[in-house]
Amino acid sequence: RSFAWCRGMAKSKFEYVREFEVLDTCLRNCWVVVRVDGRNFHRFSDQHHFVKPNDIRALQLMNRCAENVMNELEDICLAYGQSDEYSFVFHKKSNWYKRRASKFMTHVVSQFASSYVFFWKEFFPDQAILYPPGFDGRVVLYPNEQNLKDYLSWRQADCHINNLYNTVFWSLVQKGGLTPSEAQKRLRGSVAAEKNEMLFSEFNINYNNEPVLYRKGSVLIWQKVNEVSKKKIKLPNEDEEKEVEVSRWRSETVQLHCDIIGNEFWEEHPDILAEDG
Amino acid sequence: RSFAWCRGMAKSKFEYVREFEVLDTCLRNCWVVVRVDGRNFHRFSDQHHFVKPNDIRALQLMNRCAENVMNELEDICLAYGQSDEYSFVFHKKSNWYKRRASKFMTHVVSQFASSYVFFWKEFFPDQAILYPPGFDGRVVLYPNEQNLKDYLSWRQADCHINNLYNTVFWSLVQKGGLTPSEAQKRLRGSVAAEKNEMLFSEFNINYNNEPVLYRKGSVLIWQKVNEVSKKKIKLPNEDEEKEVEVSRWRSETVQLHCDIIGNEFWEEHPDILAEDG
Amino acid sequence: RSFAWCRGMAKSKFEYVREFEVLDTCLRNCWVVVRVDGRNFHRFSDQHHFVKPNDIRALQLMNRCAENVMNELEDICLAYGQSDEYSFVFHKKSNWYKRRASKFMTHVVSQFASSYVFFWKEFFPDQAILYPPGFDGRVVLYPNEQNLKDYLSWRQADCHINNLYNTVFWSLVQKGGLTPSEAQKRLRGSVAAEKNEMLFSEFNINYNNEPVLYRKGSVLIWQKVNEVSKKKIKLPNEDEEKEVEVSRWRSETVQLHCDIIGNEFWEEHPDILAEDG
Amino acid sequence: RSFAWCRGMAKSKFEYVREFEVLDTCLRNCWVVVRVDGRNFHRFSDQHHFVKPNDIRALQLMNRCAENVMNELEDICLAYGQSDEYSFVFHKKSNWYKRRASKFMTHVVSQFASSYVFFWKEFFPDQAILYPPGFDGRVVLYPNEQNLKDYLSWRQADCHINNLYNTVFWSLVQKGGLTPSEAQKRLRGSVAAEKNEMLFSEFNINYNNEPVLYRKGSVLIWQKVNEVSKKKIKLPNEDEEKEVEVSRWRSETVQLHCDIIGNEFWEEHPDILAEDG
Repeated sequence: RSFAWCRGMAKSKFEYVREFEVLDTCLRNCWVVVRVDGRNFHRFSDQHHFVKPNDIRALQLMNRCAENVMNELEDICLAYGQSDEYSFVFHKKSNWYKRRASKFMTHVVSQFASSYVFFWKEFFPDQAILYPPGFDGRVVLYPNEQNLKDYLSWRQADCHINNLYNTVFWSLVQKGGLTPSEAQKRLRGSVAAEKNEMLFSEFNINYNNEPVLYRKGSVLIWQKVNEVSKKKIKLPNEDEEKEVEVSRWRSETVQLHCDIIGNEFWEEHPDILAEDG
Repeated sequence: RSFAWCRGMAKSKFEYVREFEVLDTCLRNCWVVVRVDGRNFHRFSDQHHFVKPNDIRALQLMNRCAENVMNELEDICLAYGQSDEYSFVFHKKSNWYKRRASKFMTHVVSQFASSYVFFWKEFFPDQAILYPPGFDGRVVLYPNEQNLKDYLSWRQADCHINNLYNTVFWSLVQKGGLTPSEAQKRLRGSVAAEKNEMLFSEFNINYNNEPVLYRKGSVLIWQKVNEVSKKKIKLPNEDEEKEVEVSRWRSETVQLHCDIIGNEFWEEHPDILAEDG
Repeated sequence: RSFAWCRGMAKSKFEYVREFEVLDTCLRNCWVVVRVDGRNFHRFSDQHHFVKPNDIRALQLMNRCAENVMNELEDICLAYGQSDEYSFVFHKKSNWYKRRASKFMTHVVSQFASSYVFFWKEFFPDQAILYPPGFDGRVVLYPNEQNLKDYLSWRQADCHINNLYNTVFWSLVQKGGLTPSEAQKRLRGSVAAEKNEMLFSEFNINYNNEPVLYRKGSVLIWQKVNEVSKKKIKLPNEDEEKEVEVSRWRSETVQLHCDIIGNEFWEEHPDILAEDG
Repeated sequence: RSFAWCRGMAKSKFEYVREFEVLDTCLRNCWVVVRVDGRNFHRFSDQHHFVKPNDIRALQLMNRCAENVMNELEDICLAYGQSDEYSFVFHKKSNWYKRRASKFMTHVVSQFASSYVFFWKEFFPDQAILYPPGFDGRVVLYPNEQNLKDYLSWRQADCHINNLYNTVFWSLVQKGGLTPSEAQKRLRGSVAAEKNEMLFSEFNINYNNEPVLYRKGSVLIWQKVNEVSKKKIKLPNEDEEKEVEVSRWRSETVQLHCDIIGNEFWEEHPDILAEDG
């Protein structure tokens, strides 16, 4: 038993190893973006029979996970997702965990990953999840609003470009009877206008009528909701209980599928990036 | 449709935002440790009725998740876990994802988190998981073997100290009928030898006979196994198929619950930290 | 001689050590401030008999060094100095040496240090420099203009506070006959208004009439000057040379000693922080 | 005068800007190398008429500066210089300025730069220094002895390669009458053995007889010297003063020009990298 005591003493001897941890504080007053990406999701989506080019269930599951991240963690003012990636914007004034980059990253990515498995069966009731998926994450800082908006525009422009390509590609394969490599060859070097034209003339698809969730991705923001509940109260000098309505403001996440490249979005939602947001 | 084309063009206009990402390369030739910790696991373990002071199911689930991490990711040569934390050691020669700290951290923590939900029902068949748990992670570098061994010793000494404390604390509460705050008061300032004595004289518990998994935590390492399988072959100039045995070396993880503070462990397993490991 | 050849070959064997160098890129679109501080300047100023509380020669030498730094290096848009420190502001759009922090720091501090010895005799003609002085430097990033202006205000407020204190302290010692520790005791806990009052009632000094260089420190900015020079030219179909005036715009540093805490300075000089500055 | 008081108050309002400074702690237990390089020294050496290929005065001035750096700063256990560069090795156990990279860098580079101007006239008595030279600096960490030795070997191998090249190049130009571009062309693609042969057959120079300072660069290390001084003492119960010898061990830098690529150097000087060095 004296042995155990020695080990206790030993702890302080080893504790010097803590000093090897290095602080990775994010520069203050900058917007902190954490982007999560699926790891090997090409393989994952094949093995789970995701519909091509867009699997509505998979996209809604991603949105559900992102909502959970926003609700569980602090100071996220907006999230944007498309395909197998999701970006979370922490407010520039956030001082969560003293702004340590590793805390931002690992909390987001672990909450997202556990949510993915947890909520899976809600969106894929007929399809078991075969193995635990992996995600990677990164932190990027943006010193001003314009840089941040340009980041989000970059991701939405990427959504547009990939979705247009994939829509034509899978039309050529699924409806046009081309092999994947023939479809790829057909599309090589084509500009957006030509892809739109192919869809229209060959498959009678007007790309702009495709579901907006596919074309624009998903934006999650906070919205104040007025919750009214009924409550019975009994005043001291009255005999009977009285039913009263109690109203309370609460924030909850809301999903949008709108353009965030233009100014309209930001003009309609000045609160998102506000200093006291 | 020309609109879509404009947006395509716009992507390059926004792409400058990529340059705000900063490289977080881990110094070469150092051991890279990623430690995962449960977030708010006090609350999580209460809500899921974990047995105190140790819930064997929860500890085995942690080990299962760690095994999955070791098998899915590259270059992990050892993992050590106790309570709601797990440390993963990437070999100092690893060049996985160009040694980017964010990649090490987020891959480990997301794989661990998704595994936790995925494997939950194997260990808690009668208890549904109520919400997706969160974890945090960090990266610490150790320049030489001694520093790395001292890190692992530090975690195992921590396991010992906490487990001894918790074993007495919960004995006082569960068997001695003390309230938590009475038990806490009773233990304040006591050294290890006194705690051992309390367990022995009051509850007839010899701490050293407690399960080694609780006292030492879990070590995961790789071990080579010889897999022998039978295969039927048919040689060209023979009529009948022949059954032959095919033997193949494969690495798989193995769980140990031994002391890693002394030298014996490292002397018995020289391969773990070997240069060509 | 074959030996030399072997060594030549050996170089590539050692070159792997370059990969241990880690990039320390400054976040884009942030103002980069490098502050230089004299090392052990208390001792240096004693040994070189600097006049107390302000040695005009030493301050002018500091300004001369800062001018040299601004002229030799790229992208510095403003410098502010007081006492034995100088801050240099690199424009947020600067891409000098790919924004490596170590380049910003070491170029500034080495140029400042070599200039200090080089220009010494211009300002201290009767006093040899006894040993090479040392300086330290640091890099701090500011994401927006307000943060940068607040940084400069912080340094000028520091100048004010220290100079007021030193002016009273040395009056008490040099004119009031107090020992340094008596003067220190006298000043302990006094607010600015009380220090002003002491100066006025005891030494007939109106602090606001003290030289502005001492009270405000020095600001270096760029100013466009029109240089007119005379040049003789001879036109092909004329016999005689003609003298013409050639005018050319050139940027040169100018020294100011004004308030930079209020808005006036920035309103008068909108170019300093301009995007295309 | 209340104005001044307001400003004093204002300081605390601005002090938040300090929090933008980020810690750049060097990983513990690693060797810290600071390398200083001359900035635009090609131009500097031309304007100061340095002798080609080696100017003994310039090299000795570099050594003098490095000696000053070693004596003024803490924890440097070795320095190696060649051409216009110098590397300083801080002991891996150093905790100087809490191991902040910016402190290591800027102290070394500023002390080196001020020393260069300060000691100039000792080495160039007939040649005034025309302008203050600049230097840059960087910090690189090496986790173990072998990496550190390989770093130093890399620099010495670089010295050898460049010096051999320059020796032949300037022989061709100065003695062989070739233009620089003819000399360059002549040398293109030649291996070390061929360069040695050119020197020997065309200019009767045996490269191995060239001064070792040029071929090997300079190593500065510490050596203990026994200083004996005479002192007069008078014992209480004796009439006359007595002269006694007092001996004292002191560390001073010593210059070597030996091979540091092989093991002999490290075997002869085990103290340099010793744990308690």
